[in-house]
Amino acid sequence: MIMSKQKNILLGHGSGGRLSHQLIQDIFVKHFDNPFLRKQGDSAILEMDSSSLAFTTDSFVVDPLFFPGGDIGKLAVAGTVNDLAVAGASPKYLSASFIIEEGFSIELLEQIVISMAAEAAKANILIVTGDTKVVDRTKCDKLFINTSGIGTLGKSSGDITTGKHIATGDKIIINGHIGDHGMAVMGARNQLQIKTKIDSDCASLNGLIHEAMQIEGGIQFMRDATRGGLATVVSELCSDKTYGIDLYESQIPLRDSVRGMCELLGFDPLYVANEGKVVMVVAARLVDKVLEKLRNHKYGKHANIIGEITENHPGKTWLHTTIGGKRMVDMLAGEQLPRIC
Amino acid sequence: MIMSKQKNILLGHGSGGRLSHQLIQDIFVKHFDNPFLRKQGDSAILEMDSSSLAFTTDSFVVDPLFFPGGDIGKLAVAGTVNDLAVAGASPKYLSASFIIEEGFSIELLEQIVISMAAEAAKANILIVTGDTKVVDRTKCDKLFINTSGIGTLGKSSGDITTGKHIATGDKIIINGHIGDHGMAVMGARNQLQIKTKIDSDCASLNGLIHEAMQIEGGIQFMRDATRGGLATVVSELCSDKTYGIDLYESQIPLRDSVRGMCELLGFDPLYVANEGKVVMVVAARLVDKVLEKLRNHKYGKHANIIGEITENHPGKTWLHTTIGGKRMVDMLAGEQLPRIC
Repeated sequence: MIMSKQKNILLGHGSGGRLSHQLIQDIFVKHFDNPFLRKQGDSAILEMDSSSLAFTTDSFVVDPLFFPGGDIGKLAVAGTVNDLAVAGASPKYLSASFIIEEGFSIELLEQIVISMAAEAAKANILIVTGDTKVVDRTKCDKLFINTSGIGTLGKSSGDITTGKHIATGDKIIINGHIGDHGMAVMGARNQLQIKTKIDSDCASLNGLIHEAMQIEGGIQFMRDATRGGLATVVSELCSDKTYGIDLYESQIPLRDSVRGMCELLGFDPLYVANEGKVVMVVAARLVDKVLEKLRNHKYGKHANIIGEITENHPGKTWLHTTIGGKRMVDMLAGEQLPRIC
Repeated sequence: MIMSKQKNILLGHGSGGRLSHQLIQDIFVKHFDNPFLRKQGDSAILEMDSSSLAFTTDSFVVDPLFFPGGDIGKLAVAGTVNDLAVAGASPKYLSASFIIEEGFSIELLEQIVISMAAEAAKANILIVTGDTKVVDRTKCDKLFINTSGIGTLGKSSGDITTGKHIATGDKIIINGHIGDHGMAVMGARNQLQIKTKIDSDCASLNGLIHEAMQIEGGIQFMRDATRGGLATVVSELCSDKTYGIDLYESQIPLRDSVRGMCELLGFDPLYVANEGKVVMVVAARLVDKVLEKLRNHKYGKHANIIGEITENHPGKTWLHTTIGGKRMVDMLAGEQLPRIC
């Protein structure tokens, strides 16, 4: 049997035997290549330059696997990089675990792996350990990817994750347009006949965040606005707190194309997923400096102040609408868009 | 909507919104509870007592979810703990990521989470970060779990993962009976009318391995014999090396029940998966001491010397059979038993 001629994934590729080894060599080690992965032990052996670490995990089940501006591979790297970066950590190492449906195209798998490798290179992170499982036809939908990540933390970054220094008057910043990812995936999924092409904003934000963190004492809190969108991040942020949040609709970057598609489909862009957007709470006195840093970076050109921390309505977020009204913003109750990431 | 009355997983449980939060609180944080997880940041923030780390990942897709001696939850914890332990590391922190089919029973999910929590407590490891995705009905098979793990390494443990000090005359040890896990899952899957009840050997081996590592300079290499079984571990170990391996069939612990079921179904027990078995290469002069340590531990009572490193047939493993013949042992070529872990 000349196994290199296989065009599709077989159950044997997940057996731990010869086919598994071949897949690992020909696809994963080939593209993710680095000294840690090359050893192929049960675990990767790593040397860290800090004893303080951030550790995170995410499984990706996006449907379809390819969409304008990205694919499940790019998403799986950027998503976990961003979870580390918003904790104030420098992302260092990733694991990559694949659950593949029997019969899946090896060519498509390699394309996705190449995309992961490219995004990992951009984010300056190494994929050091992995796993492959194959399930029988119809027992999963093509391909799911889990990535877990480790990053190192400087001494001052611990407080960012808890947001313990958030104070009244702090400004809320977002680094650009909301809703691009959700609408890009939605468009790809339903093959809608909409002329405007919307690209996902899927990107690793650690470079951008590193820049903004140069303004010492500026950032009080960060979170990436993925599932549940901007609305869920701000609702969560002030829930059970002594402060509330005022958001200004007119200040929130939103592309006309995304606004149009949301109106057409009945989605609220505040709840639509992003994959390259970070929400920051920034001390008022340093907000201009942080904004300048963000706007000088390619992923922050459209960064804007979109709201502020207030003592007026503790635990609540109010959206001041463009037409002069206001409405309360709450967490997503059901599910707008399943399998968006 | 009184969401606590939900009996089945909805797509909204994976939305990142209110239902997700409730599931995290009511099931995951409740049972995995620890200070790291409680913070519920995008990443867990950890302090390590060593700069040298082991990092590993595994996705679990076992079918069925429950089998004699374990379930997918116990397996997901023990499997990743063992990958860390065989690297010579002390397992410290786990991530847990769930991909759940819409409609899955929340009661069963909780049962599995309780099982994970119990195994994590036994293995003295903390589940510190996680993720939940829900996919539409028929898009995955009930439940898949990914766990990634971090362990700390002592100074001397680095060489164990590479096996660089393996020498001719070193002994091969296994800590007990082979094939239990594979046949337990197979029995549960097919509901065969076999009277002998076979329990999976699924267990976290870090305690056992810690004991054996007390014999300094004893263990030259370790690997857990999971997918692909004992045969795959030994084939991989000597592949492309200047040494080969002799295995003695009569010395390999194998239960009559497992032997019988393998014969009935046409499986070679050497290739059947284990989830609580470690293969060790041990320096000949220290093998009795290591064996004593193993046999004094509940997971090593049936530990035995099953073979040795030889210079006679480099790169090859020969099995000396009970009836006096010998045959070459190679890696698994296809797939005997899909979705065994």
